[in-house]
Amino acid sequence: MVLEKMRHIEWKGDSLKILDQRKLPGKIEYAYLKDLEEFHQAIVEMKVRGAPLIGVVGAFAVAALAQEIDAKSKEEFLKEIEKGAEYILSTRPTAYNLKYCVNTVLKRISECEKIEDMRKVAVEEALKLFDMEKENSRKIGEYGEKLLNDGDTVLTHCNAGELATVAYGTALAPIRIACEKKKCIYVIVTETRPAQQGARLTSWELLKAKIPVTVVADTAVGYIMSKGMVDKVIVGADRITGEGYVFNKIGKYQIAVLAKKHNIPFYVAAPTSTFDTNIEHEKVVIEERSVDEIVFVGRKRVVARGVKVYNPVFDKTPPNLIDAIITEKGTLYPPFEKSISTLFSNQKL
Amino acid sequence: MVLEKMRHIEWKGDSLKILDQRKLPGKIEYAYLKDLEEFHQAIVEMKVRGAPLIGVVGAFAVAALAQEIDAKSKEEFLKEIEKGAEYILSTRPTAYNLKYCVNTVLKRISECEKIEDMRKVAVEEALKLFDMEKENSRKIGEYGEKLLNDGDTVLTHCNAGELATVAYGTALAPIRIACEKKKCIYVIVTETRPAQQGARLTSWELLKAKIPVTVVADTAVGYIMSKGMVDKVIVGADRITGEGYVFNKIGKYQIAVLAKKHNIPFYVAAPTSTFDTNIEHEKVVIEERSVDEIVFVGRKRVVARGVKVYNPVFDKTPPNLIDAIITEKGTLYPPFEKSISTLFSNQKL
Repeated sequence: MVLEKMRHIEWKGDSLKILDQRKLPGKIEYAYLKDLEEFHQAIVEMKVRGAPLIGVVGAFAVAALAQEIDAKSKEEFLKEIEKGAEYILSTRPTAYNLKYCVNTVLKRISECEKIEDMRKVAVEEALKLFDMEKENSRKIGEYGEKLLNDGDTVLTHCNAGELATVAYGTALAPIRIACEKKKCIYVIVTETRPAQQGARLTSWELLKAKIPVTVVADTAVGYIMSKGMVDKVIVGADRITGEGYVFNKIGKYQIAVLAKKHNIPFYVAAPTSTFDTNIEHEKVVIEERSVDEIVFVGRKRVVARGVKVYNPVFDKTPPNLIDAIITEKGTLYPPFEKSISTLFSNQKL
Repeated sequence: MVLEKMRHIEWKGDSLKILDQRKLPGKIEYAYLKDLEEFHQAIVEMKVRGAPLIGVVGAFAVAALAQEIDAKSKEEFLKEIEKGAEYILSTRPTAYNLKYCVNTVLKRISECEKIEDMRKVAVEEALKLFDMEKENSRKIGEYGEKLLNDGDTVLTHCNAGELATVAYGTALAPIRIACEKKKCIYVIVTETRPAQQGARLTSWELLKAKIPVTVVADTAVGYIMSKGMVDKVIVGADRITGEGYVFNKIGKYQIAVLAKKHNIPFYVAAPTSTFDTNIEHEKVVIEERSVDEIVFVGRKRVVARGVKVYNPVFDKTPPNLIDAIITEKGTLYPPFEKSISTLFSNQKL
């Protein structure tokens, strides 16, 4: 695991060291996050991105803040930490893992009596979430690799790899584990406009892992499917509702429609921290980001001044387009409303 | 017609003045094509692009070459001009208009006896094709606008506008004419990676024509359709076979699949010079262009060195995904095999 050695996220005792993903693949540049504002900015500006990773970063943001708060009572401390947590949650609205991780740390803090303990458990809990996400990714990989055959070409979108998580990845974990088990897997990744996570991050990560990868434009998905070049699709998720609606990077929905049209299995890989079983899919907020992501290419303006641009960065894939959802607790199959409900009732899948 | 005043293509007696479309929207820069090599390069490098436009440019390439050839006999002249024509045809394999226009000029030349006449008719014929394409676009606009209702939002892909033709455009002609007739039409255009003709050219052209236009990433098509934001799709074509298979910019096929899924009418607009009724759709060559179109963004490398890239730039939309094909001779409806056959038998549509 080349990237793990690189430590793209590492708790340094009083700050979080992160690899600045905006600079990849051209530059390996780290940033150190300590103040709440630095964490907030790193998530907003996508120095770190990927649902599981921003979840863990959010947990460390709360942990770091806990060290800084100067409060006279538990109540005052909790008020301050909750305010800070809200600020972190306001960074990006669509992914659920951020909420899950931040709330998990908050809950643990609120169970303490002494401020000193609160500070201590905050870090403990963030580190635990870090380990848990790593472990979850590994398990997703182990369940998911069973769905892959030797020789398969797998299409993925965006980056749901090691860089989007703590290790292994979500969508890329089954591919990594399959390769560890000596299956030959070929990956095709979309460029993933506007932020180009597929072209910039996934291909770089797989190149380092020596897994064959080819980049295509987002416009080429239908064509390569129609030519029989894709055996399976595996993608990540930012939020999955109780009915199995999957919110993820813009473009995922149309890939799912195209996969169905060409009879290609469409799999989603995500840890249970991505599941939000208490929300109706109509109510999930689709983040819109700066139009500059489309207007400018580097520093060059490619869209004329005065032209409107619309830049939603997530979309929703309905359960009827999904063949399986791979979690760390096993692989879920349709009807998802039932299999997800069973999963969260802690029943056997 | 703002762009027509700008004359993005103009015969200057001994050379062809063209607007360098690679530089848009940032710079208005013209180039003058005189030597065969200059014409060849302009088409290959996409200084000019768009099936009807490169057809007309190809005609002028032959006309310009006809002035240059120093031959002693008709046979020698024809041999030279055919060699030059082959070189121009080798620039881009998918669009049919280039072949149509080049061959039309060649045919006219071959009917002459004197070399002096050959030179004269070559220019005459190129100018005639120029006028014909302009007239055809206007007629496509008039037939096509009947399919548009006041208030419609029309999605288009790439640039099939004035810049892709001599005037009006193909896909954009119905929109322009509808607007002239005081219908309110809103346009959404995809960025169209890799070469960004939608973001760079279509939005610029429509902004100048004061037609409301919004740019979206290619990944957002499924999402905006699922949100009910698109009433109709109109796109251009590079080659249409006798059975109604439409070859056009990569990404068109997947838009057609998505339109069908969301019950949105999908219209193709193209002059009859785009129809190649003598070829089987399996035999049409899909051009692949330099991977640098994806690897580099301006001068910045966004895909790591060593990663493979696949860059097909056209795809094929089957007739069963198309609701109508708008030509200068009327609008064709399914079954296209029959309506196209009728069109080319000069029967009443």
